[in-house]
Amino acid sequence: MNSRRNPASASKSVLPGVSPWRASRERLRDREVKRDAVIRAAAREFNRKGYHNTSLDDIAARLEVTKPTVYYYVTSKEQLLFECFVAGVEQIRAAFRDVRHLRVPARERLNAVLRHYGEAVASEFGWCMVRAEHQDLSPAMSRHIKSLKSEIDHGIRRLIREGVQDGSIGPCDPKMTAFALAGALNWIAHWYREDRSMSGAEIAEAFVAIFEGGLRPRGSTPQIARAPPRRRARGAMAR
Amino acid sequence: MNSRRNPASASKSVLPGVSPWRASRERLRDREVKRDAVIRAAAREFNRKGYHNTSLDDIAARLEVTKPTVYYYVTSKEQLLFECFVAGVEQIRAAFRDVRHLRVPARERLNAVLRHYGEAVASEFGWCMVRAEHQDLSPAMSRHIKSLKSEIDHGIRRLIREGVQDGSIGPCDPKMTAFALAGALNWIAHWYREDRSMSGAEIAEAFVAIFEGGLRPRGSTPQIARAPPRRRARGAMAR
Repeated sequence: MNSRRNPASASKSVLPGVSPWRASRERLRDREVKRDAVIRAAAREFNRKGYHNTSLDDIAARLEVTKPTVYYYVTSKEQLLFECFVAGVEQIRAAFRDVRHLRVPARERLNAVLRHYGEAVASEFGWCMVRAEHQDLSPAMSRHIKSLKSEIDHGIRRLIREGVQDGSIGPCDPKMTAFALAGALNWIAHWYREDRSMSGAEIAEAFVAIFEGGLRPRGSTPQIARAPPRRRARGAMAR
Repeated sequence: MNSRRNPASASKSVLPGVSPWRASRERLRDREVKRDAVIRAAAREFNRKGYHNTSLDDIAARLEVTKPTVYYYVTSKEQLLFECFVAGVEQIRAAFRDVRHLRVPARERLNAVLRHYGEAVASEFGWCMVRAEHQDLSPAMSRHIKSLKSEIDHGIRRLIREGVQDGSIGPCDPKMTAFALAGALNWIAHWYREDRSMSGAEIAEAFVAIFEGGLRPRGSTPQIARAPPRRRARGAMAR
């Protein structure tokens, strides 16, 4: 038996002065890095060919490994889609955590979250973030995805409500406004794959500027007086 | 032969004083009404079960007719999806035509189009409008859908540019702004099926109000001075 052992790993395991625990930590990190590569490769394949048209063989081929190697990191294609979804939404959840204790008006905290949201949707995980829910997933997976989306939706509504309270956001319907903001950002995943003339960060910044400014003429120009529908529209919002 | 003729239709065809051309027009109108019913039934089935999981048998069953009857009005399931798509986008195209010659600031014309856009997406055809492109369609059908979508996108950009020129819309990047507006509206199809607490018209009105007002505090309140990121964001937009 001894003669068949891999000499490299044998020498590694007896290296003097190196804790076997450290080696174990390194292996864990190595596994984490490789798992991450599998998830990114999956995201790229899903983007390119769609979820249903992508097989684990395709992902393995792209990574130049065998399918069993892929199975060492994830249990199924469905789990891969979920991991791609999570990789995207985790950027938004982290942004919520980051701004939670900032002592700035709620609109600034909201804008910081929206920037990360926009960047996440423009990332390689964007398509999975907005499309995962519409694939044929197990009921448990669907529920999990819905609950994570709902958490983000309610986080945005909460920041809008806080903004209305601290005066940094004008009076509005938090639910409708959250739908409008998230919709505009989610839609990035639909057009960004074909039009990459701006970086994800630039797009996110541009969208936050649009959300902030709206379509109204800037400043107190005479054009404001020429716009009766706005008042009517605002009335409808207050309902 | 004569004895086997349907007496009702025979008496109809010889009714004195009634032009056979009028009867022909009536038949055409009748066919149009029935074709419309087939398309609406298809839209409802696609909404409920998804395009791939819906068969022409399902649509026939919903209409209580046979599948050949459905084939009398459309040639394929793909054509039905296309007709549902067209039924939605035609509402937006009609809005563009309606406002073309109005002598009002471009923002008002844009808002009118966006209201119709929002109502169309909240209608039974909304799901087909935003999802048609992502089904397995023939290349010709895909191109047709893309070109109609592109026409609407460019129509919105044009109204934004005109608004910037006539001063009714503040300086902005027309392409990004059009993407943000259309994205927010398209996303209605994703949440409206589950949350019908407002009518389509109310949602459209609410969204136009959000687009107009943005997130900025209304009026010249002290909070405006507390918002440095807006200026930075606006700078990014001007690129």
